[in-house]
Amino acid sequence: MSNLERFGVSIEDELLSRFDALVRKRGYTSRSEAIRDLVRRELVQQEWADPQAEVVGTVTIVYEHHEHELGDVLTELQHRYHDAIICSTHIHLDAHNCLEVVVMRGESARVKDIADALISTRGVKHGELACSTTGKGVG
Amino acid sequence: MSNLERFGVSIEDELLSRFDALVRKRGYTSRSEAIRDLVRRELVQQEWADPQAEVVGTVTIVYEHHEHELGDVLTELQHRYHDAIICSTHIHLDAHNCLEVVVMRGESARVKDIADALISTRGVKHGELACSTTGKGVG
Amino acid sequence: MSNLERFGVSIEDELLSRFDALVRKRGYTSRSEAIRDLVRRELVQQEWADPQAEVVGTVTIVYEHHEHELGDVLTELQHRYHDAIICSTHIHLDAHNCLEVVVMRGESARVKDIADALISTRGVKHGELACSTTGKGVG
Amino acid sequence: MSNLERFGVSIEDELLSRFDALVRKRGYTSRSEAIRDLVRRELVQQEWADPQAEVVGTVTIVYEHHEHELGDVLTELQHRYHDAIICSTHIHLDAHNCLEVVVMRGESARVKDIADALISTRGVKHGELACSTTGKGVG
Repeated sequence: MSNLERFGVSIEDELLSRFDALVRKRGYTSRSEAIRDLVRRELVQQEWADPQAEVVGTVTIVYEHHEHELGDVLTELQHRYHDAIICSTHIHLDAHNCLEVVVMRGESARVKDIADALISTRGVKHGELACSTTGKGVG
Repeated sequence: MSNLERFGVSIEDELLSRFDALVRKRGYTSRSEAIRDLVRRELVQQEWADPQAEVVGTVTIVYEHHEHELGDVLTELQHRYHDAIICSTHIHLDAHNCLEVVVMRGESARVKDIADALISTRGVKHGELACSTTGKGVG
Repeated sequence: MSNLERFGVSIEDELLSRFDALVRKRGYTSRSEAIRDLVRRELVQQEWADPQAEVVGTVTIVYEHHEHELGDVLTELQHRYHDAIICSTHIHLDAHNCLEVVVMRGESARVKDIADALISTRGVKHGELACSTTGKGVG
Repeated sequence: MSNLERFGVSIEDELLSRFDALVRKRGYTSRSEAIRDLVRRELVQQEWADPQAEVVGTVTIVYEHHEHELGDVLTELQHRYHDAIICSTHIHLDAHNCLEVVVMRGESARVKDIADALISTRGVKHGELACSTTGKGVG
């Protein structure tokens, strides 16, 4: 567990009052919490800029399940990358459309490659990678 | 189900050969598939620019479970928005860190608000919203 | 002119040391300066989410000047929006390629429309909008 | 100069009609022009992912000119990187605020470093890097 430290931020009053409005709007309980979030988001972005850094990512894909036996294709693809894929969750959006969220962990370059492979699969309509973190080293 | 149409794209030869390299690198089976993906991504971004459009989004959050009884707080929060939250998946990243992926569906402004509420919760280290789609109207 | 205020941020020691590394890497003279930058960037993004907010934006376009009398077309286009276009700067990248940076000021929806019009002009190869600010209300 | 080639895209009718609406809204003269733009944007993003690739970038900064003799500091900074800075344009937004657009050319890692150095300068309120291209190899 980390120890808490404290540092002071000097800031223009007008900027502070606009920041406070944003803190309230987003539902933060304190300025510190909001500041820590901004800092951690920068650090996680830095992690993803390093191809070898260990990251966690989730890719959300939407597809029609009866197209091209897509369910099978995607399952097979995920097995090929089983070492980096932790799990996936499937939602039936309607009679035709499925959403699948695949959670991955590994080197950022590899996680991006797996996301590309899933998104580029014929029949997948849309895919979006969320770049997250193992939680280590970000507080 | 949609019917297939076909249209021609005129393009510089050098640009085409660089595009073909990208299509191969990402693993697309054809140029058409890659083009459709670029088109759908633009359309999904447009959907999210309209606060009333019905969208699907997934928010990925990372937190330490023994902080501030955070598991309970997040569960309660998700129940408050139960009409828009379809499901959530939980992964134990290590002894301290948890990852949770929450799948939401509703008006884009509301989905963003729920994501903000989850991300701003005290103890959540990192959160990232992936902007996806119901799959309707994007092919 | 604004008055300076000061507030304290409590933060985990490990997170702070990683933040300090980032502050050094980017060349900030103090943590406060880096924090203010993170805050202002969030506020400027909020401004752009409001279609009526007054913003400043710059669009960078690259094109081949001897294509389709493009120089004339772009000049004419900029005159049509003269009320919102402050100035533009032109660079000759090589014998064929030009870069032009157009500085705009106005309601964010209108600035986006002008950027779209410039980027979509036949012969423009690439365009990118940088979302900036009038500087008012951000310290 | 490049030669034009032509290839066919097969696409669902519903997706095509939504794409046509987007093409009209953005002001493109043809589907081909819109498709080429989507393709080039992907390629330019790929270029920036390679630290050694030669790119062109513009950084837009906003600052108050009478703060900390900032004008001098920024001029000196730009001279230090003169090999990669092509030119800069200055706009007086109001009695206090200035906007400066700096056009840079060089390896993407260096262009990012220069942008960081300008943005992190004490007194600069906001900075945004637009990632553009030399125009070579993108049609």
